[in-house]
Amino acid sequence: MTKLLDTVHGPQDLQALTIDQLARLAEEIRQLITHSVSRTGGHLASNLGVVELTIALHRAFDFRRDRLLWDVGHQCYAHKILTGRGELFDRLRQENGLSGFPSPAESEYDVFTVGHAGTSIATALGMALGAQHKGTDEKIVALVGDASIVNGLSFEALNNLNLVKRQLLIILNDNSMAIDVTQGAMAGFLSRVRLSHTYEDIRKTTTRMLENLPLIGRRMEETLENVKKTLRMAISPNRLFESLNIAYFGPVDGHDTASLIDLFKMLSELDRPALLHVYTKKGKGFTPANENPCKYHSTGPFELNGESETPLGGERTFTEAFGNGLAELGGRDEKIVAITAAMPDGTGLVKFRQRCKDRYYDVGIAESVAVDMAAGMAKQGLKPFVCIYSTFLQRSVDQIFQEVSLQQLPVVFCIDRAGAVGNDGPTHHGLWDIAYLRVWPHLVIAAPADEWELLQSLKLAAQSKVPFAIRYPKDAVPVDPYGSDIPYAVGKSAVLRHGESDIVLMALGWPVGEALKAAETLEKEGLSVTVVNARFAKPLDEALLQWFRRGKTVITLEDHCISGGFGSAVLEMATEKAREENNDLFLDSIGRTVVLGAGDVYLPAAKRSKQLFWMKITADQIVETVKTLKYQPEKVDR
Amino acid sequence: MTKLLDTVHGPQDLQALTIDQLARLAEEIRQLITHSVSRTGGHLASNLGVVELTIALHRAFDFRRDRLLWDVGHQCYAHKILTGRGELFDRLRQENGLSGFPSPAESEYDVFTVGHAGTSIATALGMALGAQHKGTDEKIVALVGDASIVNGLSFEALNNLNLVKRQLLIILNDNSMAIDVTQGAMAGFLSRVRLSHTYEDIRKTTTRMLENLPLIGRRMEETLENVKKTLRMAISPNRLFESLNIAYFGPVDGHDTASLIDLFKMLSELDRPALLHVYTKKGKGFTPANENPCKYHSTGPFELNGESETPLGGERTFTEAFGNGLAELGGRDEKIVAITAAMPDGTGLVKFRQRCKDRYYDVGIAESVAVDMAAGMAKQGLKPFVCIYSTFLQRSVDQIFQEVSLQQLPVVFCIDRAGAVGNDGPTHHGLWDIAYLRVWPHLVIAAPADEWELLQSLKLAAQSKVPFAIRYPKDAVPVDPYGSDIPYAVGKSAVLRHGESDIVLMALGWPVGEALKAAETLEKEGLSVTVVNARFAKPLDEALLQWFRRGKTVITLEDHCISGGFGSAVLEMATEKAREENNDLFLDSIGRTVVLGAGDVYLPAAKRSKQLFWMKITADQIVETVKTLKYQPEKVDR
Repeated sequence: MTKLLDTVHGPQDLQALTIDQLARLAEEIRQLITHSVSRTGGHLASNLGVVELTIALHRAFDFRRDRLLWDVGHQCYAHKILTGRGELFDRLRQENGLSGFPSPAESEYDVFTVGHAGTSIATALGMALGAQHKGTDEKIVALVGDASIVNGLSFEALNNLNLVKRQLLIILNDNSMAIDVTQGAMAGFLSRVRLSHTYEDIRKTTTRMLENLPLIGRRMEETLENVKKTLRMAISPNRLFESLNIAYFGPVDGHDTASLIDLFKMLSELDRPALLHVYTKKGKGFTPANENPCKYHSTGPFELNGESETPLGGERTFTEAFGNGLAELGGRDEKIVAITAAMPDGTGLVKFRQRCKDRYYDVGIAESVAVDMAAGMAKQGLKPFVCIYSTFLQRSVDQIFQEVSLQQLPVVFCIDRAGAVGNDGPTHHGLWDIAYLRVWPHLVIAAPADEWELLQSLKLAAQSKVPFAIRYPKDAVPVDPYGSDIPYAVGKSAVLRHGESDIVLMALGWPVGEALKAAETLEKEGLSVTVVNARFAKPLDEALLQWFRRGKTVITLEDHCISGGFGSAVLEMATEKAREENNDLFLDSIGRTVVLGAGDVYLPAAKRSKQLFWMKITADQIVETVKTLKYQPEKVDR
Repeated sequence: MTKLLDTVHGPQDLQALTIDQLARLAEEIRQLITHSVSRTGGHLASNLGVVELTIALHRAFDFRRDRLLWDVGHQCYAHKILTGRGELFDRLRQENGLSGFPSPAESEYDVFTVGHAGTSIATALGMALGAQHKGTDEKIVALVGDASIVNGLSFEALNNLNLVKRQLLIILNDNSMAIDVTQGAMAGFLSRVRLSHTYEDIRKTTTRMLENLPLIGRRMEETLENVKKTLRMAISPNRLFESLNIAYFGPVDGHDTASLIDLFKMLSELDRPALLHVYTKKGKGFTPANENPCKYHSTGPFELNGESETPLGGERTFTEAFGNGLAELGGRDEKIVAITAAMPDGTGLVKFRQRCKDRYYDVGIAESVAVDMAAGMAKQGLKPFVCIYSTFLQRSVDQIFQEVSLQQLPVVFCIDRAGAVGNDGPTHHGLWDIAYLRVWPHLVIAAPADEWELLQSLKLAAQSKVPFAIRYPKDAVPVDPYGSDIPYAVGKSAVLRHGESDIVLMALGWPVGEALKAAETLEKEGLSVTVVNARFAKPLDEALLQWFRRGKTVITLEDHCISGGFGSAVLEMATEKAREENNDLFLDSIGRTVVLGAGDVYLPAAKRSKQLFWMKITADQIVETVKTLKYQPEKVDR
């Protein structure tokens, strides 16, 4: 049988298909997604859940001029397949391949490159206002999940929806069927709505709404008012949204393609914002037994971001080492509390949750309140560990400033995915946290290079009287310590290798291992270099300044951007000290400093190793940099 | 008549007073506040509105062990007076005086130093969980205004309130009596509730709740359930909060001290979180005619932060110059749209609002959605100008990253209060924006030094194809241009004065004027220095590197912190270039760089001029720094 997918080159080809054919197409899309993801990694369950929804959207709208805004965006695979990108799926999330998120650079059908939650309603609000000003009539659709709508940004957008005096359709894709994953009152509310309705009710809701069609000959507003009146009699999940003055419709079945098409068409005629509540089943059509069922289950419905990377071949990761360490520490110290923003697996908190269940908190995708809750707990004498990816911690900058740093509260920030993140690409890099954290007084920033240092930093953090951040990458953790004979203390660096030449490799965190490898290579080639592990980005060890001496060249290495990062902090300290102690330090050495890290660009999706190569912080690249230095060690005028 | 206030040395002294005496006390407190603020500046109307509420709180609770959490915090004056700080009010908001915000350093009655909105419920949530873990029974009270509850952080906290299984009282202080200032759906909802109730209704609500007292002999839970049942029959403003599973009570009269005391006592016995909705009248008891009525009115109910500073003696401010400039620009360009987060006055948007009413948006205290809305508008081809104070823009870091910079959208950020802010103190400094902005690719950061540059930067921004930030301080704007003969272009600096010595003052933004003054003073004393206006923090002009030459000392000046700031960026660029072009640049000059700005501390409240002195960027201090340089120009080995 010819594949239907082969005949669909773009959304316009959907128009000719019958409802039965659309159902067959949905199955073919599911197969393609499952097949691709099993090989390339990626988000599976969430994508399988929205296949019919996506087909219906593209049949009801023309997204060359209408605009479809994804939230988080990792569930856009069916959308990519329908918009002519199916053949690129063998290079999903690969370098020069297809992005795992929407990307305007790839297709006119994508509007925003997104990977963070809560943005769809907010940006749709702006786009609708833009259309209002321009007087254009394109339809604007925001597709938001039940996990994203609890984010403060979604709420701020819902609260301002009344600015819009034209069409704007919000589709709430509600797929949290499991009770144990509902976090917070909004989830509880949606869950109560869900439990109070049978599938038959949902069918009836759809029917009642559709009975008011066809629309011809009747005013749309009037029609919709009738629908709403009918609905109000039958069910009442609308009070939350209606108290916010948002026209609410639903809930309806998100796998009933034919009805969805009609509903979308009808609701898109409204001249004010409306919200359609849709039930979908995450992972629909996928048989877990075909794959690794454990993995399928452990990747819970709230694990939204980048959890399907190709495994690292059994090596222990920083995440695992952290998870073990915190569970161990938590088992011994009743004051330790762990907080996650919807990422218990990704941040490695599963063991802690098992061991210290009553001291584990998941606030949903709500990073701002996670930090403030920790501040309140620290005020009460507890030791809260807030576990958030570097990229998502950007949502908490102001809370880290005011509620934590300004109050000098001992909140611990466990920052996973700090550094280049690999295949998730630009929306998920953790390349900026040192810059946005080191400006705050009272804050300690540790960057452990190996498992021993990670565990040491956790212990120090648990005893800290001030805020304490620990950053580590999405990578294998070195289990043989680089320098466990050198005591680990706040603001103290460690000299790992004394070289005879004037070259000093000064590394922070993950690049320490690369610096050591580079040193070995250089040694074999006759150049003996010094390797220093800075250990902390803040406070910086003043002992680092001893390496600025006439003739010496310091090369700083960090898994972070150059702007405002570790190297930049070293330069600030060195010039400050040079001014104070003109006699001890030699100015030209400061001028020779080479700062390596990410430049002023968004590193595209690729393997993390490739991104580190671009940043010039891999061992080979370090060797290359040393060899091409213009101030060669042998040329130094002593 | 003896003043009652003189007999109240602490909250415990309230216990002996009759209700009539408490009313007299309220009047005395109002007089003290009005009198003090008229002299020192500060927040007037908001403080006058909560006097009875504050008295009732301190009578019903013992906040030496119970905990009272303020939101925004500028309305804590009555609280400060009642907790033994009345005599310090003549030094309100002054150096070494009383903070205008809660401050744990001042009093055991203050819990968090706050000045940003939306934190009270979030931190109270953490404190309640902390008490839950410790098994302590102190009462926890969060006092939040109707302007703060629309912030995403408040919503995230409300959504997670069900984690708390003990007492936690949220008091919603609803004082938005004027319809025209209600922003957003929440305000609309509260307004509908308000309009549907007469004062008589509110009295009845209170009575119904109190009739169920006394509590002796009856289970508190049962009593409260009865109260709620009675209330539910009469009024129904509760559906919003109750859909979030929050026990809602009210609305009640916030000036009826006796009833409030009883209600607080009753509700504090609940073993779950509850919200009491209270109506107060902002500015109650204050007769505008006694003061400047215009000023009183223009400081609208949403102008929450630091709008009552002593006037600058008629000099034009950066804010006014910006306001004039944008109104002018907006009048000529239909694509320009302005967005504020509840600060139309503070950000100078009043003229734009008058002139371009349909292109002016106020989203309430919701900085995150302000930026995303702008991103959506920019996607539609509009030119959105987002006007947010530097300190509050910290709430939008992640939106600036993903929804603006990553998409390369031409959103303009007009960042007022960038730099030291004076009497508002640590919660409001704008000393970190360059650090948290310059890490994002594609972003331009301008720092105009005078009015001409400010207007030029606005024009450039309106034509920009990339995100464009303009930062300027809370200060008088120099109206005579420093260098209007030198074309103003993105990433181009301007040499304002060629000196003969090896000293180069390289300033960004406001300190340019100080550098010029310092140069004049030094010239008189026989030292001729160079003054360069960098104009942009990003992209940095490569021409700045010409000043790094053997023997030269570059002193960078910025109204910003040293960490990751402008000086730091200059050092990064210089070392990068030194490596590339070893022959052209002289290394020791880089090592001599002196970076001046705010250190790694929170500058306390004081006059802005004093804070600039501490940062060593005033003319006198620059002269001092030049004179005490160890590498004196005359000692240079040429």
